[in-house]
Amino acid sequence: MSELTIWTYDWVPEGPRGFVRDLRLRWACEEAGLSYAVATVPFDDRQTNHLARQPFGQVPYLNDGALEIFESGACLLHLARKSERLMPRDPAGEADTLQWTIAALNSMEMVTVPWWFLKICGDEDNQLTGWLGQRLDHVEQVLSEREWLAAGRFTIADLLMADVLRVSEVRAFGDRPASEAYVARVTDRPAFRKAHAEQIALFGAADGTRAEKVSG
Amino acid sequence: MSELTIWTYDWVPEGPRGFVRDLRLRWACEEAGLSYAVATVPFDDRQTNHLARQPFGQVPYLNDGALEIFESGACLLHLARKSERLMPRDPAGEADTLQWTIAALNSMEMVTVPWWFLKICGDEDNQLTGWLGQRLDHVEQVLSEREWLAAGRFTIADLLMADVLRVSEVRAFGDRPASEAYVARVTDRPAFRKAHAEQIALFGAADGTRAEKVSG
Repeated sequence: MSELTIWTYDWVPEGPRGFVRDLRLRWACEEAGLSYAVATVPFDDRQTNHLARQPFGQVPYLNDGALEIFESGACLLHLARKSERLMPRDPAGEADTLQWTIAALNSMEMVTVPWWFLKICGDEDNQLTGWLGQRLDHVEQVLSEREWLAAGRFTIADLLMADVLRVSEVRAFGDRPASEAYVARVTDRPAFRKAHAEQIALFGAADGTRAEKVSG
Repeated sequence: MSELTIWTYDWVPEGPRGFVRDLRLRWACEEAGLSYAVATVPFDDRQTNHLARQPFGQVPYLNDGALEIFESGACLLHLARKSERLMPRDPAGEADTLQWTIAALNSMEMVTVPWWFLKICGDEDNQLTGWLGQRLDHVEQVLSEREWLAAGRFTIADLLMADVLRVSEVRAFGDRPASEAYVARVTDRPAFRKAHAEQIALFGAADGTRAEKVSG
């Protein structure tokens, strides 16, 4: 029996399918060859129904035996200790992976997510647009000079950065060929494709159950 | 001679003094009793003058002997390996510290910083306000039940979360007594006060030099 359990919602609407962040953990486990189970919490009333387990009412969270961890970034750094495929073991490679992992979370996603949120609220040309453009330009510059962000190879830093950049609105923001090629390259990895397909399948399979529940 | 060197700007305007993120690294070193030096890069033309060292043109970055690391969150996780005072060594305490460290960066600061940015751009009642309120309420709930975020003691998770919450606009957003007491408690630590005073002193001492340069 697997000791790793990845928790996600039992169902989500079509829009976020393929983007719910349990995908990051599924993907990391697939890259590393770690076996894992997937378990679900109800999507409905999610602001209140699992606050004791995840204080912001979000998914994913992870069980590793008796350990419990929330925040996808923290789960990835935890999983990275289990496999060199996710993060090199030499100090320079590890530091490089760590800095780009945090950059994806705190320099890029800190701009892309609020920008996207304002955009879907109807504020197309919002005041985060200039900031987003600058950050994307910095990453484009880096990716125009190398294939992977850290340590000369695929790491969890690429997993996270590609997951941040592959959001369709971000991908369509300006013409950045190195970033586009990077997203295409990283999301073509078998581990991503398997994790993506299995998330889509889980939520799709729940459509029937939910239709019954809503009409019942 | 110290092997740790924290890099920051040589000067900043009065507004950000006491908030530039080299403070996070100074503070961590003070908590851990790690000796360190502080070095500076020019504030002027900062978007271009150190991109090779920090790809987003930001500070801080850290030298640890031959290792180079950027992103304050990554630097803190790196420093935490040097001292148990920053992060416990048992797996449960470590996982707990890690999840709250990433929560400060990716669940809280991802909302506080863009919200603050829109606010100083003149958009007082912006569309991130509701989201900010929810996130602050979640943290208030947690802090109303315990003194420290992780592992029953001060860790880098508190250092980061308090640094995110102590921004005056965030602190003034609604009435959240547990969060306010937490910020007061954490920022009353001698290590914070020393790091804060030394950052203020560095930038203040540079005022004279800068006045000469600007008028010269």
